[in-house]
Amino acid sequence: MPGIRLSEKITPNVEEHASEKYTAKLYAIHRFDKAHLVMLIEEELIPREDGIAMLKALREMESEGVEKVRLEVQGGSHSGEQYLIRKLSEEVGGRIHLGRSSGDFSAVSNNIYWRDQLLDLIDRINQYRAVLIETGMQHLETVMLGYTHGQAAQPTTYGHQLLAWSLNLGRDVARMRAIFERVNMSPAGAGILTGTNFPLNRHRTSDLLGFDGPAINTFDTILQRDLEIEVASVIAIHGYAMGRQADDIMMWSTSEFGIIDVPDRFCGTSSIMMQKKNPQATQDIKGSAADAVGGLMTTFMVEKGPTGMPMLDRRYAGMAITRGFDHAGRNLKWMIEMVPALEIKKDLMRERAGAFWAQATDIAGALVSEKGMPWRTAHQIVGILIRYSDERGFAPKDTTVELLDEAAIEYMGEPVNLSAEALEAALDPEHFIRSRTLFGGPGPDEVRRRLPEYEAGLQSDIDWLTRVREAQQASSDSLESAIDALVNAG
Amino acid sequence: MPGIRLSEKITPNVEEHASEKYTAKLYAIHRFDKAHLVMLIEEELIPREDGIAMLKALREMESEGVEKVRLEVQGGSHSGEQYLIRKLSEEVGGRIHLGRSSGDFSAVSNNIYWRDQLLDLIDRINQYRAVLIETGMQHLETVMLGYTHGQAAQPTTYGHQLLAWSLNLGRDVARMRAIFERVNMSPAGAGILTGTNFPLNRHRTSDLLGFDGPAINTFDTILQRDLEIEVASVIAIHGYAMGRQADDIMMWSTSEFGIIDVPDRFCGTSSIMMQKKNPQATQDIKGSAADAVGGLMTTFMVEKGPTGMPMLDRRYAGMAITRGFDHAGRNLKWMIEMVPALEIKKDLMRERAGAFWAQATDIAGALVSEKGMPWRTAHQIVGILIRYSDERGFAPKDTTVELLDEAAIEYMGEPVNLSAEALEAALDPEHFIRSRTLFGGPGPDEVRRRLPEYEAGLQSDIDWLTRVREAQQASSDSLESAIDALVNAG
Amino acid sequence: MPGIRLSEKITPNVEEHASEKYTAKLYAIHRFDKAHLVMLIEEELIPREDGIAMLKALREMESEGVEKVRLEVQGGSHSGEQYLIRKLSEEVGGRIHLGRSSGDFSAVSNNIYWRDQLLDLIDRINQYRAVLIETGMQHLETVMLGYTHGQAAQPTTYGHQLLAWSLNLGRDVARMRAIFERVNMSPAGAGILTGTNFPLNRHRTSDLLGFDGPAINTFDTILQRDLEIEVASVIAIHGYAMGRQADDIMMWSTSEFGIIDVPDRFCGTSSIMMQKKNPQATQDIKGSAADAVGGLMTTFMVEKGPTGMPMLDRRYAGMAITRGFDHAGRNLKWMIEMVPALEIKKDLMRERAGAFWAQATDIAGALVSEKGMPWRTAHQIVGILIRYSDERGFAPKDTTVELLDEAAIEYMGEPVNLSAEALEAALDPEHFIRSRTLFGGPGPDEVRRRLPEYEAGLQSDIDWLTRVREAQQASSDSLESAIDALVNAG
Amino acid sequence: MPGIRLSEKITPNVEEHASEKYTAKLYAIHRFDKAHLVMLIEEELIPREDGIAMLKALREMESEGVEKVRLEVQGGSHSGEQYLIRKLSEEVGGRIHLGRSSGDFSAVSNNIYWRDQLLDLIDRINQYRAVLIETGMQHLETVMLGYTHGQAAQPTTYGHQLLAWSLNLGRDVARMRAIFERVNMSPAGAGILTGTNFPLNRHRTSDLLGFDGPAINTFDTILQRDLEIEVASVIAIHGYAMGRQADDIMMWSTSEFGIIDVPDRFCGTSSIMMQKKNPQATQDIKGSAADAVGGLMTTFMVEKGPTGMPMLDRRYAGMAITRGFDHAGRNLKWMIEMVPALEIKKDLMRERAGAFWAQATDIAGALVSEKGMPWRTAHQIVGILIRYSDERGFAPKDTTVELLDEAAIEYMGEPVNLSAEALEAALDPEHFIRSRTLFGGPGPDEVRRRLPEYEAGLQSDIDWLTRVREAQQASSDSLESAIDALVNAG
Repeated sequence: MPGIRLSEKITPNVEEHASEKYTAKLYAIHRFDKAHLVMLIEEELIPREDGIAMLKALREMESEGVEKVRLEVQGGSHSGEQYLIRKLSEEVGGRIHLGRSSGDFSAVSNNIYWRDQLLDLIDRINQYRAVLIETGMQHLETVMLGYTHGQAAQPTTYGHQLLAWSLNLGRDVARMRAIFERVNMSPAGAGILTGTNFPLNRHRTSDLLGFDGPAINTFDTILQRDLEIEVASVIAIHGYAMGRQADDIMMWSTSEFGIIDVPDRFCGTSSIMMQKKNPQATQDIKGSAADAVGGLMTTFMVEKGPTGMPMLDRRYAGMAITRGFDHAGRNLKWMIEMVPALEIKKDLMRERAGAFWAQATDIAGALVSEKGMPWRTAHQIVGILIRYSDERGFAPKDTTVELLDEAAIEYMGEPVNLSAEALEAALDPEHFIRSRTLFGGPGPDEVRRRLPEYEAGLQSDIDWLTRVREAQQASSDSLESAIDALVNAG
Repeated sequence: MPGIRLSEKITPNVEEHASEKYTAKLYAIHRFDKAHLVMLIEEELIPREDGIAMLKALREMESEGVEKVRLEVQGGSHSGEQYLIRKLSEEVGGRIHLGRSSGDFSAVSNNIYWRDQLLDLIDRINQYRAVLIETGMQHLETVMLGYTHGQAAQPTTYGHQLLAWSLNLGRDVARMRAIFERVNMSPAGAGILTGTNFPLNRHRTSDLLGFDGPAINTFDTILQRDLEIEVASVIAIHGYAMGRQADDIMMWSTSEFGIIDVPDRFCGTSSIMMQKKNPQATQDIKGSAADAVGGLMTTFMVEKGPTGMPMLDRRYAGMAITRGFDHAGRNLKWMIEMVPALEIKKDLMRERAGAFWAQATDIAGALVSEKGMPWRTAHQIVGILIRYSDERGFAPKDTTVELLDEAAIEYMGEPVNLSAEALEAALDPEHFIRSRTLFGGPGPDEVRRRLPEYEAGLQSDIDWLTRVREAQQASSDSLESAIDALVNAG
Repeated sequence: MPGIRLSEKITPNVEEHASEKYTAKLYAIHRFDKAHLVMLIEEELIPREDGIAMLKALREMESEGVEKVRLEVQGGSHSGEQYLIRKLSEEVGGRIHLGRSSGDFSAVSNNIYWRDQLLDLIDRINQYRAVLIETGMQHLETVMLGYTHGQAAQPTTYGHQLLAWSLNLGRDVARMRAIFERVNMSPAGAGILTGTNFPLNRHRTSDLLGFDGPAINTFDTILQRDLEIEVASVIAIHGYAMGRQADDIMMWSTSEFGIIDVPDRFCGTSSIMMQKKNPQATQDIKGSAADAVGGLMTTFMVEKGPTGMPMLDRRYAGMAITRGFDHAGRNLKWMIEMVPALEIKKDLMRERAGAFWAQATDIAGALVSEKGMPWRTAHQIVGILIRYSDERGFAPKDTTVELLDEAAIEYMGEPVNLSAEALEAALDPEHFIRSRTLFGGPGPDEVRRRLPEYEAGLQSDIDWLTRVREAQQASSDSLESAIDALVNAG
Repeated sequence: MPGIRLSEKITPNVEEHASEKYTAKLYAIHRFDKAHLVMLIEEELIPREDGIAMLKALREMESEGVEKVRLEVQGGSHSGEQYLIRKLSEEVGGRIHLGRSSGDFSAVSNNIYWRDQLLDLIDRINQYRAVLIETGMQHLETVMLGYTHGQAAQPTTYGHQLLAWSLNLGRDVARMRAIFERVNMSPAGAGILTGTNFPLNRHRTSDLLGFDGPAINTFDTILQRDLEIEVASVIAIHGYAMGRQADDIMMWSTSEFGIIDVPDRFCGTSSIMMQKKNPQATQDIKGSAADAVGGLMTTFMVEKGPTGMPMLDRRYAGMAITRGFDHAGRNLKWMIEMVPALEIKKDLMRERAGAFWAQATDIAGALVSEKGMPWRTAHQIVGILIRYSDERGFAPKDTTVELLDEAAIEYMGEPVNLSAEALEAALDPEHFIRSRTLFGGPGPDEVRRRLPEYEAGLQSDIDWLTRVREAQQASSDSLESAIDALVNAG
């Protein structure tokens, strides 16, 4: 307001941007206004009747729509005070901001918004993990090629891979839970860095806001921003997993791979190429994963500088994080629906698993098991055998013990005499999988043995979420009860 | 449209996002529609009367508002065809897309949008350079401290620094001009990667779109994206310069530096600290510069992968680039107004320039000039003198030839006998500046000698912009004339 | 080796780079070789005497120097096998690699290296936290200016700020501990993605390697890389904190701020400017913090793509992470020494804290407390008072109750009649600090009340580290005992 | 040196790092020492005999090896002065640094190093472009699938694609030439920001160093760093192109695509999977491309802050840029050899080009050409035809005019009666390519028509490089001649 501290009207755009940041967080500002008022009244820091009048006015605002009304009075952190002053006069409404600062507003609303977004994201990831475990268990015998270095490596199963995906997402949840614990501390009362000399009851406000307690250093909670960067970071790391899964689906659905088919409803076609069925959702997932990394870089870049030098700059970090949460939620929604709906070409997968020598490991293994040969020697002989295959053009299924002996003779001057049964077994990708019975391997029985561990990991995160949400609800109820009590008594 | 190629209705969000990308580029799509039609008619690739009917309909659309009408018919690249089909039937409107692809749409509209944004940005940068040169020339004798390693280095002038800023911005323009040349080639007719087997006249379309000529390889112009990354990169590099200038202004306007004052209209105050006059615009400039770097990282990340694998992913790069252009334009607008309006505390600047030994270089220089001493020896002696100053607490202005002799004796066992006049001159920061007469130095007369070079650099960019815009206007006129001719004849 | 599987000698550089990655991790490869052998012998998967011969040979290698000997036989993962084959023949040494893959090597050595580096870093951070808490407690009454938006905000204390730094570093440790838990799972036996069909005892190998247990999905532990990104991320986030502290020190040690002095041993001077005392270490800290962000970007970029498509690409992520750990360790070493050695200019700090109206908040507070005025009203009146100060040039210390009344009259038509005592107290920055007694505030007594919480947080991390290192030592001992038992029995 | 300006010995690592930066640039420092001396003598700023003695000593250093000798005297910028002082006394050697600063050193050696690296890189890129054009021209009829959205799009040719690659690399050269022009200006004489008050002849030094002239603003040339960022940026953008080509090769050489085979000498095998032939070089190219993006991020991050605040921080940017140049040179060397040596499976490529409906565009085209149908109508009918193919499982080659009529009847109630010849032609991918005769299309004759434009672009860059290198050689010769003249005369 020009004429008080400053003497010029602010340049239009400067102001416009000032309010942009908070729109998604207005509900958190509103709750802070209410909790702060309750505490001010209880601590007798403002006249009781003024406080009650303000609480009543905020409830009226709720009946009209909090976001709508607040945007009408400029939006932003101070929309509550503005509204109360206009409605109840400065003499009354001018009392709400006692002991607070825009530093509190920013930190409290960030923490509430991050916390709520993290819980929603955890919820969706848990749903997706359940989908992955369920779908994965249906595909324990769906043998397919595994890749390394961009080359066919070994047979594996589609199911074992989906279960692996679920573990990565479980670690995403672990990272998010850890941030939640760090973020769910209350900055309220920390002012702009020193708090205030009014005897606020920071524990009470913290409880009413659903936090685990007040932050123990006012400077830290307002001015240090590792948590903001950590939030951006965990979104980007989660994006890595989702983007890679989308990339896998993209590669598998090329004509050349052709081992899965994406449902039409996630695809578009082309205005010139009628044959096209372009997977669109997966491209959006990859693109938004890229954007999450860019957003993390924005956040790091924003925060560089001495303490207190970058402040409003954080709007740009904030916008990046908001985009990141929005995209992550959308991407999960899509994958939860898409993954179980993918059409899996099992026969083609299995055929490929045996067609490119990916089972070669087990021929060497057979030489060790049946003939007591050192691994390295067996490895070299099979290496020569495969060179023959390249040079002469025979397929794995056409390999004979004679060819193997020829390779052995080239390597060490004598044949190996592997039994035909052992060779046949070694050439069979399904046998390859069935024999992977070691702990954690893709053998179907072994995966079934491990299932309780996958399930327990997920269940523990589901239980945690339930507990946290119940605590959140209890806090929210206690705030409303406190207001009821004051308003009714008043 | 389900039921033709695909059999499911697309998932809501997937489609919604599909149109988002093009809104800022609808005007370019519209122009492409017109130019393509003119060419199709002239080359007799569609029935003349159908073509003319479509041109008339597009002109009617213009009278209603291109963006508005196109958004009503789903927005996006195909809004022109949709509109024409609805208005004129598929039999007529269904002919416009002959020989085109969404690849063309994307590449043509990107190139037009980038080109136009680059020209606007060059225009603003040129205005800002003019401001910097003019303001800089007013401050050739405004002596201030220059910094290196976060420490007072040498006296310089505010004017010389503003002129240096103008050179950085001149290089930004050079980078943008270079991209403009690369970008102003026409993809039109390149289809999705191979063009078409209809004999399009790509040169004609190129001319009507204001391009310098058709791209010589259809695969390249559609599927390789170094230019997109280069655009993001040049925005981010420009952001570096603007962010650094904003950071300088922030540091200079701290209470401790206090050498400039930012006009109130670019500042906000605080809800708790009444003394606050927070420079807001500079924080937005810094924050958006950070975001431009994040946007560049998004773009690099999006583009990683085999050719044709990331496509829709580019929406996220596109949104980052659009933000980048918007912010850059806004930031320049602010700085063009703010820099001449900064209040410069000349006396304080000058006092500081002499208070922290930043002039020490010239005492050593005086020993070389007057006494023929090797530079290194002189340097060591003055180093000792300054250590005395630290230890004993005397200021530069209180230095005497006796103290200098004491240091010399410590270093080499004998005094140096510098004249008092030479010492006094060496201690004067204004003398320091006046004596910097070498080519490119901050001596006011030398800067005035160089002024024509600054001005010529700027004028050459202004002239280039004028020429390019005239050529653009001529192309735009020729398109309208061609339409007039067809419509009137038809 | 050409002539076996492949028929050409590898291009020089391609091979050279292949070994580069593992040098820092050779000790981990060595330990894996030993643990794997013990398990193979115990499980009777190789002839006992061959296994014992290999264990003896590896102990001989230790007496010559593991890194030296391994680099002589090409370095890299397979240096153990190479050495054993050369020393003991392929018939014996060729047996060690049974059931392993380079996938195991890479994952096991990464996990061991990351785990050990994380523990070392946690150790150093804990030391630094102790320094910060101790130094901070010495400065609870060292009043200084706090900054926001690049402007003097409120008085705070140097001690409260150092304690805030310690909290940020405590969160760094929490992040590192969490990764440690995720990383300290054993990939050994996971092969390249499916494990092996030999009945390896993965639990035994895990125990001998000091891991908490074998990873439950072989695909996940080899091919998914969120933990690598998380490691890079946590280094970069830690870099943020260290870089910001370095930036603070840089700003505080400018001539204009001049409130601290960096010890000479962390500084350099200039070849031309004798007065220069450039803080070098802080610039290295900032630069390496920037590099940690770049390294994180490299890591994200490397990992983009379908599973198994980027593999050797990870060398570049690996080099970035290695640089990150090295720099982080060095930076902490410097800060542990530098922070207690900084010369603090208390008087100047205190003077500044009162000179720029940073205490203004409390004048408004006094109006609320003494006069029952609404906060907003008090805020506006003090805003006007400060505008007077700007316009008329009086300092905070020269403020009078009359001036305050003049402002009040301008705002609301009547004076406020604040008592002179209240005004005087409000203008005193030390009073400002002393009155910040609310929970978490900078009031010295309040900080002392919170001290046990700072100490408990640190102690808990120290205790954790002790426990983990004891467990690590026990595992290491058990490996050597197992080898002793075998070698002695054999 | 403690005891002069500062009173403590510098902390070990701080100093160690100080010299690290310059090793790769010592040759540039050496040349600057010589050129500066020649100018000082010619301008009579130092005693002629001292100058000549120093020039002689520097020539002696050359006979021993510049890098070796300089590293013996601490390395770094001041190694020349150190060497001269030790060899000739401070009285003589102490005169060389007159009028210079470490700012000059850093800027001059950066500009020389960047310039030389850019020229080498341009040379290699030009060689690679020649390889791409030559190999591409051999494959104008090698029909293969082009991809968009991760799906088979249209037939194209391998040759047209390689030519497209050459254009991207041509733009890389254009970007590098543009930076060269900006970088090849001489900072020499700019000191640390103000130059000096000694009348240096900056034009003479510039000529002797091979620069195009002295920079016109000493502040700009030392303290603004957009060129450093631009260098890092152009390396990263070039990395994008190389990384994408490597990604294409990786995808094409999967078993599923299998359309190219990478020579064994660029591959490795596996310790467990004998069938493996892992393309290693392409993974290194992709990885180093990722690192170049990380290096750019490091550079942006390093440079953030007020002017003169980040300085030594730039070591980390410098190391990133040095890595970037090294990797880029290596990658090009590999690709120059690898691309012509790739085995191209033409028959398979051609088969695939017709197998997945990628030619569908031309069926619709045939309906427009032969039947005068609107494009959109033709597009919809062919869309339905392809849905039939999906549902009923017939291949493109088994399509009949009857099926097309069935689709037409479904869409518009009547058949289209396309001639069987037109349908057959439309289904043939070679016909598809031959008919792409429009400007810039992949039709072999059209590509041959465009060849002169590809060649002219390359030749123009080769000629430019020749001219620049001749000018560089002339400058280098003139420096040696000037020294000869002085030394012989002296």
